[in-house]
Amino acid sequence: MVRVADGVEKVLDTILPPAGPGPEGRLAEAMRYVALGSGKRFRPFLVVASADLFGVPEQVSLRVGAAVEMIHAYSLVHDDLPSMDDDAMRRGKPACHVEFGEALAILVGDALLPLAFETLVEPATHPDAAVRGALVSGLAVAAGARGMVGGQVLDLAAEDMDLDAGEIARLERLKTGALIGFCCDAGAILGHAQDAERRALAAYAHDLGLAYQMADDLLDAEGDAATVGKAVHKDAGRGKATFVSALGIEQARAQAARLAQQAAAHLDVFGPRADLLKNVARFVVERGS
Amino acid sequence: MVRVADGVEKVLDTILPPAGPGPEGRLAEAMRYVALGSGKRFRPFLVVASADLFGVPEQVSLRVGAAVEMIHAYSLVHDDLPSMDDDAMRRGKPACHVEFGEALAILVGDALLPLAFETLVEPATHPDAAVRGALVSGLAVAAGARGMVGGQVLDLAAEDMDLDAGEIARLERLKTGALIGFCCDAGAILGHAQDAERRALAAYAHDLGLAYQMADDLLDAEGDAATVGKAVHKDAGRGKATFVSALGIEQARAQAARLAQQAAAHLDVFGPRADLLKNVARFVVERGS
Repeated sequence: MVRVADGVEKVLDTILPPAGPGPEGRLAEAMRYVALGSGKRFRPFLVVASADLFGVPEQVSLRVGAAVEMIHAYSLVHDDLPSMDDDAMRRGKPACHVEFGEALAILVGDALLPLAFETLVEPATHPDAAVRGALVSGLAVAAGARGMVGGQVLDLAAEDMDLDAGEIARLERLKTGALIGFCCDAGAILGHAQDAERRALAAYAHDLGLAYQMADDLLDAEGDAATVGKAVHKDAGRGKATFVSALGIEQARAQAARLAQQAAAHLDVFGPRADLLKNVARFVVERGS
Repeated sequence: MVRVADGVEKVLDTILPPAGPGPEGRLAEAMRYVALGSGKRFRPFLVVASADLFGVPEQVSLRVGAAVEMIHAYSLVHDDLPSMDDDAMRRGKPACHVEFGEALAILVGDALLPLAFETLVEPATHPDAAVRGALVSGLAVAAGARGMVGGQVLDLAAEDMDLDAGEIARLERLKTGALIGFCCDAGAILGHAQDAERRALAAYAHDLGLAYQMADDLLDAEGDAATVGKAVHKDAGRGKATFVSALGIEQARAQAARLAQQAAAHLDVFGPRADLLKNVARFVVERGS
């Protein structure tokens, strides 16, 4: 995971425009502020590990991981805005709009989004234009109204509603699950996976995504801000429906563990090659405890 | 121009998600609010007319025009936000954030952006994956930090500065010129243009983009809100540097006419096939007077 994090950092450093004087240099500085030097790089790791199942070289999968990370980083910037979740801290430092102002924070997202697609579509990502196209299509769907943005819309609406665990699962399948699903699917696309392999990865990503979100909700409910790197106990404070509020801490933890186990089981089709991804599922639900 | 506007409206209506009940239906409603039913469709027209130089069927170029229009529509939504230009009216009706709230307006943009790339990369756009990739790449660059978003960053910074005509031209080449440039280049990409033809279209788009912006500045300085469909005299009110403030009305009008003529001249290489695009250049500078 550390090696992938270092690798994706280097790729992002090459792709992002150089910071410098003047307004455009400042935009670049803000893009680098949100995309470099922090974050667990969980999503790029999933891309690399999924692609590795098919022997795809890391220099290929790291570029796709960097593109996903740009989408993820932009989504955090926009989510943190005052008119959205209004979070002042992110990854242990001031949120982008606190550091650079609201207008620039919006534009940082607006610049990272097309840069992700520009990155995917470059021949350096893959020699086959059809593969690059499939990646663009998959990321566009995952990032858009039928994916991440749709989930954020549901999430904003959920602040006034009392959602049950099923409704929260639907919300999270869009908000975080769609992008996690793309990460694993990107490995399958790059690796020209068989249909059964691709379905196995999709099932893994589905359960992993929910387990990941449950672990995140548990962290918010139980963690302290210094460790987590952002404000905690915010969900309860704003009366937001989460897996913890819907299921209680004990049941949410048990459910997350069950999902992680189930996620791992989907990968049996790959044999011991998939041990790394199976361990990731375990790691995800243990990070909070 | 009317036929293209009708055609692009139909394509957008098919591509945009259906409005309906619930938060996602509301997001779709807002996306339709900003992308359908209004706008001059100037950019799609440029795509269709440029592609027509090479005999590209309209059902192909209209899809590309629709993708460009989604980028254009999103940019207006984000530009109008309170933390940006703070405009309450757009295309003769309340701006998106006034009608749907700020959070949803941000998300409308975040959803339209990937949808544009999803549209371009679909096989329905072009049978050749390499052509689709070139379109994705071109639109991503035009919409990003080296294009439209870079221009918007300069524009926001310009409110505190006294720019000369050269600096304004640089700003506008990014803010509006990059996307207009892509429209004409898309015709060349779809039509497998020769290098000289592609360069001629690029030169045309460059001069046309500047003429278009000068005409826009003249409209703001001289027009009335009812005709223009948005607030006017705003540039002077906020002390914003424009071609009109830098050159004066008379010189800006003369310069726009010169640029339009020059734009048309670049297309002589195409012979009478290019008469439509040449007329567009003329039309652009005459719309304000």
